[in-house]
Amino acid sequence: MTKLALVRHGQSEWNLQNRFTGWVDVDLTEKGRAEAKSAGALMRATGVEFAGCYTSVQRRAIRTLWIALDEMDRMWLPVTRCWRLNERHYGGLTGLDKAETAEKHGADQVKIWRRSYDTPPPPIDPDNPENPANDFRYKTLGVAVPDAESLKDTLSRVQPYFEEEIAPRLVAGESLLISAHGNSLRALVKVLFNVSEDDIVSVEIPTGNPLLIDLHEGTVAPNDARYLDQERAQALPPIK
Amino acid sequence: MTKLALVRHGQSEWNLQNRFTGWVDVDLTEKGRAEAKSAGALMRATGVEFAGCYTSVQRRAIRTLWIALDEMDRMWLPVTRCWRLNERHYGGLTGLDKAETAEKHGADQVKIWRRSYDTPPPPIDPDNPENPANDFRYKTLGVAVPDAESLKDTLSRVQPYFEEEIAPRLVAGESLLISAHGNSLRALVKVLFNVSEDDIVSVEIPTGNPLLIDLHEGTVAPNDARYLDQERAQALPPIK
Repeated sequence: MTKLALVRHGQSEWNLQNRFTGWVDVDLTEKGRAEAKSAGALMRATGVEFAGCYTSVQRRAIRTLWIALDEMDRMWLPVTRCWRLNERHYGGLTGLDKAETAEKHGADQVKIWRRSYDTPPPPIDPDNPENPANDFRYKTLGVAVPDAESLKDTLSRVQPYFEEEIAPRLVAGESLLISAHGNSLRALVKVLFNVSEDDIVSVEIPTGNPLLIDLHEGTVAPNDARYLDQERAQALPPIK
Repeated sequence: MTKLALVRHGQSEWNLQNRFTGWVDVDLTEKGRAEAKSAGALMRATGVEFAGCYTSVQRRAIRTLWIALDEMDRMWLPVTRCWRLNERHYGGLTGLDKAETAEKHGADQVKIWRRSYDTPPPPIDPDNPENPANDFRYKTLGVAVPDAESLKDTLSRVQPYFEEEIAPRLVAGESLLISAHGNSLRALVKVLFNVSEDDIVSVEIPTGNPLLIDLHEGTVAPNDARYLDQERAQALPPIK
């Protein structure tokens, strides 16, 4: 049966510092690397053979994939990187401490920015040193860098990439592995499980715990899904 | 100016044990990892911006690339893996100790196998546990695994890949990085520098020391070439 595995990267340096990260290219912490290794061991134990892998152009997701592939003895698998799998762009919140931001703007406002489906945070200042529009890679890759994103905005760039690049391979029977971020994976889960806008904002994908989805043959419709580490599993959206 | 960088992986576990390796998927030693890191630092210092990377499907070349890209802060660059960039397949010599093989078959015979352009070693035994024909990856990748290769045989699979996949990008002005093996890189050097069959067998590409080739615009003809670590540089084929 064709499988799709979704892996959310583990702890990054800014997760540890409780800062909004978005498109800033921070690395994994040691704990994050251990989570990636554990994700690789869990996938290896399933015996699922992937035909290829996808990841973002951000270091924390790429390193998670590298560590997992090494653990799986599958370093040779083809890997495609695409900015469309990047984390949600946190706009003007980028780099800010989450607790300080709540003090400044109020917890309710921050909750809206973090958990509303379609309200983006304020745009990033063009001169912000963390502004990814100034990052060489996006010029090279020819990406029109957004200045902020709601989850809806993130989904609007993830979904076409999934439908055009990834889904046809799944439909053709290739099992695939995606290493990405909390919100790009949330967008994918919304698409795959037909989750409502109201419900998706509270779906929390655990880090380093692969979500393995069995697909109905010749489709991208989930037949079954489970987190490989059941001890740390979160509630899954119902399969319709 | 468009550049092509060729990087030969550093010390592997079987280099250290003085065994014929070929298509066996051994890993880098700690020394080999340090060589990869040094290669990355040397490339970073040039300021050359690569548009993409190529490597084999063998762990020692992939890991060399990973370590170098990490050191270059370019983990996001697209990477293409292809078996056609694999090391020469050492046939029946695979896994044998080089000194023991010389004792058994005579140093002259081993020198012919190692350094003749077109005499392959004896074929690998189909039941040899190291026979890559039994390796899952080559079934998955749909590769007709050879049972032994001369350098000429290696070139005959490297050259079409270079001409069809890599050269058009160079001609279009993209600088590219190739992380590969002693003999797949020797084949590339033969093609690029028009080295004769007699001369190529004595060209030795140093490990972990990137060969940076400046290309004439719109061609793959070398205009200039240098090893980035001049202390460890080897003589280069003349540029014609």
